[in-house]
Amino acid sequence: MKLYSYWRSGTSYRVRIALAIKGASVEIVPVNLLDGAHKDESFLTRNPQGLVPTLELDDGTLLSQSPAIIEYLDETLPGPELLPEDPLQRAEARHLSALIGCDIHPLQNLRVLKYLQDPLGHNRDEAFAWAAHFIAAGFEALETLLSKADTPFAMGDAPGVVECYLLPQLYAARRFGTDLSAVPRLLAIEKAAADWPDITAAHPEQQIDAH
Amino acid sequence: MKLYSYWRSGTSYRVRIALAIKGASVEIVPVNLLDGAHKDESFLTRNPQGLVPTLELDDGTLLSQSPAIIEYLDETLPGPELLPEDPLQRAEARHLSALIGCDIHPLQNLRVLKYLQDPLGHNRDEAFAWAAHFIAAGFEALETLLSKADTPFAMGDAPGVVECYLLPQLYAARRFGTDLSAVPRLLAIEKAAADWPDITAAHPEQQIDAH
Repeated sequence: MKLYSYWRSGTSYRVRIALAIKGASVEIVPVNLLDGAHKDESFLTRNPQGLVPTLELDDGTLLSQSPAIIEYLDETLPGPELLPEDPLQRAEARHLSALIGCDIHPLQNLRVLKYLQDPLGHNRDEAFAWAAHFIAAGFEALETLLSKADTPFAMGDAPGVVECYLLPQLYAARRFGTDLSAVPRLLAIEKAAADWPDITAAHPEQQIDAH
Repeated sequence: MKLYSYWRSGTSYRVRIALAIKGASVEIVPVNLLDGAHKDESFLTRNPQGLVPTLELDDGTLLSQSPAIIEYLDETLPGPELLPEDPLQRAEARHLSALIGCDIHPLQNLRVLKYLQDPLGHNRDEAFAWAAHFIAAGFEALETLLSKADTPFAMGDAPGVVECYLLPQLYAARRFGTDLSAVPRLLAIEKAAADWPDITAAHPEQQIDAH
């Protein structure tokens, strides 16, 4: 498999964590978003949205959108389960994931922050404050929801789908200067994940295209 | 089951369509977002994010986030399948759903348009132009992806999960004045769904709280 990925893209990072938990190997193909490589014709034929990540299976089949890729990996690969088996537990795992994937991340995506600057005329500080605002709002709810359990990870004793979303969102939160003092439970989960070498290897700054 | 819903909320509309396809009956409990009912303590105990939809099962269990609710309904209820059975087809259905759920809808959500106006100081027209911009960008990719097949619906001969996302997004697009002349395939799917009375009954303007 090949993963078209950008080192600092949160959604690429999610899929790298999912692959790490599954113990699956993948060839990383960097797509430089800052150079506009995602708008090249060669990439657009793989993904008409021009977004990373895109997973290319060995037979050339292309999968896009991190929530879809993560569920696919869980349905088809051996290894630890990303989602629990019980339907109510699965719904809770998807609830927490979607809270990040739909209500936080999209608002602090590179293309959105760029649009705030041009054409809307805001400066970088205002764009970062926007990102920090929506991250803080989502994290407040997430901290409440995750504090109901006292497990090392969000849904138990091992990392799973929620960590695929949470770790990249915490990484991004720091870039935007979000105050994380109000989310000790989120930070404790992040700390627990730091003991898992494969997950650590999925970190943006461990990527071949990091700079 | 009770569905905490707001008539014009796109994510509530998604779940109403999913329930309609499944043939499941549900009591609709309107939550008036304009009056701030979603920020009342009684609702926040049900959903700390203060967002609709929230599904309350007969035993009082609460499920939030439309992607999680829709997958739960598909995993537990009888009736037509919302997602295909084949893993690659499931990934494609989730890809198309997430394109709307993560890359379009969150950017034209009420709370986001409100923030553009206050504190960012944009007027209503500018906020609507923002919404229309991100809807058009997502729809362009969606039109390309959905045009690969010539089926009445996105994934075959019957509506499923993709229609749960698509119909509300088309409804919202019109509110924001998006030009839909470039998306004939999306409009053809919407037209096919109009022949399904249960889906038509899920429309915002058919809700008891519509005004």
